[in-house]
Amino acid sequence: MTRSDILIIGASAAGVTAALTARYHYPNKSITVIRKEKLVPIPCGIPYTFGVVGTPEKNLIPADDMFKKNNISSQIGEAVSIDREAKIVTLSDNESLEFDRLIIATGSIPVIPPLPGIEKQNIFAIQKDVPYLQDIINALEKAHHLCIVGCGFIGVEIAEECKKRRPDIKISIVEMLTHCLQLVYDEEFCLKAEATLKDQDINLLLDEKVVSFEGNDMVNGVKLGSGKMLDADMVILGIGASANTSIAASAGLDIGPTKGIQVNRYMQTSDRSIYACGDCAEKVSFFDGKPTALKLASIATMEARVAGANLFSTNRVNMGVIGVFSTVLGDCAFAAAGLTRTQAIEKGYDVVVGESEAMNRHPGCMPGANMLKVKLLFEAGSQILIGGQVTGAKSGGELINTVSACIHQRMTADEIATFQTGTHPALTASPISYQLVNAAEMAIGKMKLK
Amino acid sequence: MTRSDILIIGASAAGVTAALTARYHYPNKSITVIRKEKLVPIPCGIPYTFGVVGTPEKNLIPADDMFKKNNISSQIGEAVSIDREAKIVTLSDNESLEFDRLIIATGSIPVIPPLPGIEKQNIFAIQKDVPYLQDIINALEKAHHLCIVGCGFIGVEIAEECKKRRPDIKISIVEMLTHCLQLVYDEEFCLKAEATLKDQDINLLLDEKVVSFEGNDMVNGVKLGSGKMLDADMVILGIGASANTSIAASAGLDIGPTKGIQVNRYMQTSDRSIYACGDCAEKVSFFDGKPTALKLASIATMEARVAGANLFSTNRVNMGVIGVFSTVLGDCAFAAAGLTRTQAIEKGYDVVVGESEAMNRHPGCMPGANMLKVKLLFEAGSQILIGGQVTGAKSGGELINTVSACIHQRMTADEIATFQTGTHPALTASPISYQLVNAAEMAIGKMKLK
Repeated sequence: MTRSDILIIGASAAGVTAALTARYHYPNKSITVIRKEKLVPIPCGIPYTFGVVGTPEKNLIPADDMFKKNNISSQIGEAVSIDREAKIVTLSDNESLEFDRLIIATGSIPVIPPLPGIEKQNIFAIQKDVPYLQDIINALEKAHHLCIVGCGFIGVEIAEECKKRRPDIKISIVEMLTHCLQLVYDEEFCLKAEATLKDQDINLLLDEKVVSFEGNDMVNGVKLGSGKMLDADMVILGIGASANTSIAASAGLDIGPTKGIQVNRYMQTSDRSIYACGDCAEKVSFFDGKPTALKLASIATMEARVAGANLFSTNRVNMGVIGVFSTVLGDCAFAAAGLTRTQAIEKGYDVVVGESEAMNRHPGCMPGANMLKVKLLFEAGSQILIGGQVTGAKSGGELINTVSACIHQRMTADEIATFQTGTHPALTASPISYQLVNAAEMAIGKMKLK
Repeated sequence: MTRSDILIIGASAAGVTAALTARYHYPNKSITVIRKEKLVPIPCGIPYTFGVVGTPEKNLIPADDMFKKNNISSQIGEAVSIDREAKIVTLSDNESLEFDRLIIATGSIPVIPPLPGIEKQNIFAIQKDVPYLQDIINALEKAHHLCIVGCGFIGVEIAEECKKRRPDIKISIVEMLTHCLQLVYDEEFCLKAEATLKDQDINLLLDEKVVSFEGNDMVNGVKLGSGKMLDADMVILGIGASANTSIAASAGLDIGPTKGIQVNRYMQTSDRSIYACGDCAEKVSFFDGKPTALKLASIATMEARVAGANLFSTNRVNMGVIGVFSTVLGDCAFAAAGLTRTQAIEKGYDVVVGESEAMNRHPGCMPGANMLKVKLLFEAGSQILIGGQVTGAKSGGELINTVSACIHQRMTADEIATFQTGTHPALTASPISYQLVNAAEMAIGKMKLK
């Protein structure tokens, strides 16, 4: 039986980052990572394998390289049980691995709705599995009508990428909510995203539910709540994922209110020698400490950096989930951090909004100039930043991280309005027009009027 | 005689931003801006008028538009004196303007070294003046050998842009210091910048002083300290600027140790009804409160936002200058915030460095992928961030502003290492490889070894 000081189950974003962090913090400890498959896709890159990236083999986490460079052992196998008393993990081939500290990073599994016809062929969920993803691409090459269920990030990104690979295919997206990406952006950003999708001839069916999948062995249609019937010889489900907690639950570890493995601020489970991080772990909001079911690779890696550092001494605290998102639709970046207006109001905040839009170059005739808009949401009394959204130029993908830093540090509108930015004609808006700073100033104006 | 509640002298970055900020904070006050010329160039855009932008007329601050939209009056004229007792500014045409609060935003004037031959024709400093800039371009169209004195931002940017307009021209840059951009970047970044310039056939003469300018009426050569003689039928000086304080000094306002108008944290001069901001104002370092002669449009606008908000009640404090810089050389962004290693050591810091380099897309085969490197400098004991440098992809131009936010908030390496970032295949590095977070983690590793 092999023994490792540190054993990690899972080698996606959380597992790999936990292993690397453990190595940086504990140079002399032995570390082993257990992974089901040799090839692990980059989770956020999966939609792009259907389009610009081309194949799942070009979208892999370079885990072997990283492990080799950092003296981390790795083992292919499926962990099936944890003996907490003996501190042993058993694999499906009955091999046993002993540990001193264990990190569970088993990720999530896509939600499969229990609808009539769900078992038919050519209905796919997004599994993080290379041969399965290749099957989707093979089906895509032959399909005529693709129906995507769910208009969140996975849905919209897959729609665009499938259109890039197969410009002739008909694509519909069915979404229960009123807007695409509604859980992450305020309405005007959602409307802009919807217009971008429609421009690409992607058919949006909003406020619509799937009732059943029709056909014989193969799916050939999707029946909607409104009574409409969609032609569809291929279906992709993008309606979210649930924490993969089976091994943790079997071992008797506590499960939290959103069905993740319950962890404390140090990412310890109810067994203090066992940590959990990533999609499988229960999360709380940065804003009010309440449970949240948000799942993101960037949250997973943050949690992994907390878990990995804390294994033998509690150095780091998880402050709770801010939620920082970004994507590109058409040529336009859409990014968000923290609470949307709707979420903030639901949480009882009195919200003041400031907005600013300007070219991301100066003067505006500089090459590469594009509009970039920043919207900031503040709590009215304290003036503390609680959310931000960015749309336009691709540099917005980094700008949202400045917004995240400001949220993380609970900066006020005044502090952001006098914040020192670097600006350059070929890189950003002018110092007079810098959007982040001006959006804060615009919010202050409204707070004075209140 | 016109009377304004708020009178502002100067309409470059500081003056315009002060006027706008005053308007946001004091909606009912009358505001007048005095400017020497109708057309005011965007200061950081000036080098680009010589190349990609083409003419100075395409690089103007849209002051008239901004003033009109915000009910700000503007007057063309040169302010020549301030009567502090009577609260009156007099213009060169003897017109008088009465004020309740005055903001001096008279900027800076380029340093002209008192060297033999400096008066010869075709030797130019960079004046923020449209006809003068057009004269430089006219001279550039005919020149064969351009010598640029000073290898700071202005020098390197002008060299590249002149080469774009006139690929056949020979360009040399003469610099007293050992490296180009040495006051802003650590050595390895300077070396990379120098290699980029050499690739464009720009001749760098480092550790070299100009002794005299040769020729008859027209310059035809530059004599160097080493005895070398450079052919040069055109010279551009880029060796810095000094605060334009003449009107303030004549009015008896205090002048500070670096020859700027002395101001307090609220941007008030020694006369509490008179404020100063931008290049004309004295500055202190964010890090130790000591005087600094740094001059940047982005510092000017920050100071203007403090001054404009504080005119009738002190709402805001200037925290001191961090210094956030960026530029593009070749296709590569170079950005920096806070202290370089040399500056930090000079200030007595025990410095620990962390570095991380990764593609700014994931997987690396995504369109638009470029390397992006982040270097962070921490104070060893407190683990507080004191500086950062970024080079590579143009998204680094926004990433440096996240670094600036982290410096501003005195974040520790641990806080940055667990900081929540937004990542996306088409916009940033992967969450596992995100450079800012990993650079902090690398520094922590070194601090543990100390």
